Amino acid sequence: MTADDQLQVVQDYIRFISSHDLDAVLALYAKDAVLEDPVGSDPLKDPEAIRKFYATAFAMGISAKSTGETRCAGNSVAFPFCICVKLGDNQMSIDVIDVFDFDESGKIQSMKAYWGPENSKTEPIPKTS
Amino acid sequence: MTADDQLQVVQDYIRFISSHDLDAVLALYAKDAVLEDPVGSDPLKDPEAIRKFYATAFAMGISAKSTGETRCAGNSVAFPFCICVKLGDNQMSIDVIDVFDFDESGKIQSMKAYWGPENSKTEPIPKTS
Repeated sequence: MTADDQLQVVQDYIRFISSHDLDAVLALYAKDAVLEDPVGSDPLKDPEAIRKFYATAFAMGISAKSTGETRCAGNSVAFPFCICVKLGDNQMSIDVIDVFDFDESGKIQSMKAYWGPENSKTEPIPKTS
Repeated sequence: MTADDQLQVVQDYIRFISSHDLDAVLALYAKDAVLEDPVGSDPLKDPEAIRKFYATAFAMGISAKSTGETRCAGNSVAFPFCICVKLGDNQMSIDVIDVFDFDESGKIQSMKAYWGPENSKTEPIPKTS
């Protein structure tokens, strides 16, 4: 798996999160993948639990945006991005760093999301007239 | 270990890297710490190897600068920063994401540095007259 391949997965991941394409996101994962979001919570190992995790997030209307360079290292990547959710007249944004470990076929074997309450802020959505 | 404690370690780490304070950096680590920099290289497990790693970097004159929020999650942190090295009339900078896992006493048990050639750039140092 080249760095270009890894960068493509990250780009696809962020795009599919924002377009709420559940099947496309799940297709990036290995069948025996483990997802820990946030790090410190119980890891999800069951494909159905991982599907439900994203389905719930998409139902909340989340979107994702890259906020810096993806770092490719060995079979892993780490990348900073922002998750946004509209809450009534406000918008909550969370600055996250995700780490993916890839398996030999280029699928995400492990996903760890690093973020805490300190990385979240809620602001009014600017009104357009 | 609170998020504030974790943020302090990251702040100290970046400061000690720039001030080349070898003993202070090493004091942040657990005695049985593992360092993998970059991820994909052979992890360093021997305290002497870890000391040598930083001594070599300091001898090159590196400095470090935070480039974004530290993410605290469980017993871990992930944070983006930049490493700079002067090379003659040029300056090389590398955008890195480090992940620390802490032990129960608040020492760094595992350090993983995510970066690759794509995250490095070399530019001329602006001349001051």
